[in-house]
Amino acid sequence: MTLQLLNTLRDQNPIVFNIANFVTVQDVANGLNALGASPIMSAEVQEAESMVQIAGAVCINMGTLTTQQVNQMAVVGKLANQYHKPVVLDPVAVGAVPYRKQVALDLLDKFSVDVIRGNAGEIAALADIDWQAKGIDAGAGQGDVVEIAKRCAQQFNCCVILSGPTDVITDGKRVAKVANGTPLFQLHVGSGDLLSSIVAAFAAVSPTAIYDAAQVACVVLAGAGELVASQMTAARPATFAIDLIDRLSLVSVQEIQAIAKLN
Amino acid sequence: MTLQLLNTLRDQNPIVFNIANFVTVQDVANGLNALGASPIMSAEVQEAESMVQIAGAVCINMGTLTTQQVNQMAVVGKLANQYHKPVVLDPVAVGAVPYRKQVALDLLDKFSVDVIRGNAGEIAALADIDWQAKGIDAGAGQGDVVEIAKRCAQQFNCCVILSGPTDVITDGKRVAKVANGTPLFQLHVGSGDLLSSIVAAFAAVSPTAIYDAAQVACVVLAGAGELVASQMTAARPATFAIDLIDRLSLVSVQEIQAIAKLN
Amino acid sequence: MTLQLLNTLRDQNPIVFNIANFVTVQDVANGLNALGASPIMSAEVQEAESMVQIAGAVCINMGTLTTQQVNQMAVVGKLANQYHKPVVLDPVAVGAVPYRKQVALDLLDKFSVDVIRGNAGEIAALADIDWQAKGIDAGAGQGDVVEIAKRCAQQFNCCVILSGPTDVITDGKRVAKVANGTPLFQLHVGSGDLLSSIVAAFAAVSPTAIYDAAQVACVVLAGAGELVASQMTAARPATFAIDLIDRLSLVSVQEIQAIAKLN
Repeated sequence: MTLQLLNTLRDQNPIVFNIANFVTVQDVANGLNALGASPIMSAEVQEAESMVQIAGAVCINMGTLTTQQVNQMAVVGKLANQYHKPVVLDPVAVGAVPYRKQVALDLLDKFSVDVIRGNAGEIAALADIDWQAKGIDAGAGQGDVVEIAKRCAQQFNCCVILSGPTDVITDGKRVAKVANGTPLFQLHVGSGDLLSSIVAAFAAVSPTAIYDAAQVACVVLAGAGELVASQMTAARPATFAIDLIDRLSLVSVQEIQAIAKLN
Repeated sequence: MTLQLLNTLRDQNPIVFNIANFVTVQDVANGLNALGASPIMSAEVQEAESMVQIAGAVCINMGTLTTQQVNQMAVVGKLANQYHKPVVLDPVAVGAVPYRKQVALDLLDKFSVDVIRGNAGEIAALADIDWQAKGIDAGAGQGDVVEIAKRCAQQFNCCVILSGPTDVITDGKRVAKVANGTPLFQLHVGSGDLLSSIVAAFAAVSPTAIYDAAQVACVVLAGAGELVASQMTAARPATFAIDLIDRLSLVSVQEIQAIAKLN
Repeated sequence: MTLQLLNTLRDQNPIVFNIANFVTVQDVANGLNALGASPIMSAEVQEAESMVQIAGAVCINMGTLTTQQVNQMAVVGKLANQYHKPVVLDPVAVGAVPYRKQVALDLLDKFSVDVIRGNAGEIAALADIDWQAKGIDAGAGQGDVVEIAKRCAQQFNCCVILSGPTDVITDGKRVAKVANGTPLFQLHVGSGDLLSSIVAAFAAVSPTAIYDAAQVACVVLAGAGELVASQMTAARPATFAIDLIDRLSLVSVQEIQAIAKLN
């Protein structure tokens, strides 16, 4: 992994096409923009091919799916495969809602994804491992998160990011862990959505080394959050969110390198 | 009413299922999360039953309704009744838009709600009392807001919160008033939406004492806003919104108790 | 042009009906509200006539269009013409996505607009002039932006705002330029959407002098941003967005007058 990818991203300003969660879409757009990528959101299948063509990568977020959006996801996923654009899937709440798990499995059957990014409850659900997910949150489960992530990656032949206090990144064989972060990420809705879209941004500028791109994305976001939290004196979730986006704009490779806890 | 319900909410972290106003959805999600609840938003009727089952309460917001969403509201409302989950209805702009009033009346005919939360123009419209509502705002009317709220509560056999500079809470017989707050709430779009969802969060942890839960919700939100405003030196609506969410995360029962103006 | 229109707007508190971009809708609503207007968003065609009737102006934003929304846009545009309410069109990404260009041209064929507000890539596309747009961004093109804006205005018989580091405002004959602003506008997603809705707000209180209203809108927003930026020591895009909304609430005619770079 090389953190220089952050500078590459800023130089190339890749377009990231998001099928978005409408709850967090503005934050995600602003976070991508601050980092140095160019976000575009679309909800209309008739412009799917143009959107895929102009994009460097696609992020499909199931956070507020509808039947119509699921149809769009299938079309966009296939087009992304056809045009060789990296695809990130965020399977929001598949651990808590059976309908969503079925939708995710159907989509994963229709097109290939490069990265699945979810919390422990979501990744366990896709890997068919018991876990007590809670709504959009990871919930509490027994089990080795590394093994869960590896099994999911092997099953869908992709990278998996199982994010949490420590992010686990795996391609099914290799495993990396990012131990940066702050509990404040849990207090702000959409931290996971932002990570998924940032993974897509790094994948756009590193399409032949997705496993590396995934690690850089985790270190940059978790590291930026850690830097912000280190200067806060109380748990202020909204201030954290503002400062996080500011920091994504300002943070340097050197600052991230100095605190990176990657192994 | 006991403000200890705030600690109960934080201990139990109830899931609040919102059929949301897309204008304010991120703020509402962040506000609920900061307070100690767990927000989940869904727009797909096929997952309605799962969502109701995992939720502690449901908040149905008409702010940006569509035909499709109205159908979902009817299904979700009936399911919530069936599973005995409290339902809060926010009848946005029913005082200004006849179509919305008809939708609200149809919904209220199809399922029972525990709380209706609206401004004076909205509550008057549901109670069929003349009032000059203005768009999403309360507008100006003659008439006794306590009587209007009581009549609405009696008509729909539920609690009513008629919110404004003073919030009026009534179950049709008893009446409570919360005089906390700040004019800054008017400068930030979505203060009412946030209140409605916070009412649902408190109802989730106090399903057998909804009238109490409604009062606590009003005091906590209005009190938190008042505490924030007391430290501001100019009318900065965006800063107010950020500080409000921070404060919802930090505020203690004791702080609210010390300033509560409830009678 | 008279900046007194800002005080008129605050006195009249016009309702601005937005068919919104869901990415930026909360920011736009808060910005309008802070400025002194009253935002209302609707996605349901059945309430279109009521919404147009209560509104002082309409802003149609193509940012996240769907087939359903395009139908609503056509109905709302025609109703706005019928009720003589000013219409602003924001043709987001028509320079990058052929489908969107076709939608915009179809809409412009169905009803009259008072103002088209877009970046150089978008305005060039509508005027059928070559330009390299990039996603939602202006991209890079050769050509005289004044000539491009004029040609577009002549073609659609309306005012055009071609916004960028310098905003060009034209009715096809007269041309004004606003040189206020800050590069921070580019770092925050939705600056253009906010400008379009603010143009609608000023048009609502100056329906017989749209060209003037357009200039005032540009000067007020760009000026407020410039004032905010002058007090910042680093490029913090999220802080900029918060401070911008605060400033829209607080800024006076005198403050804008003192820095206005209009010619």
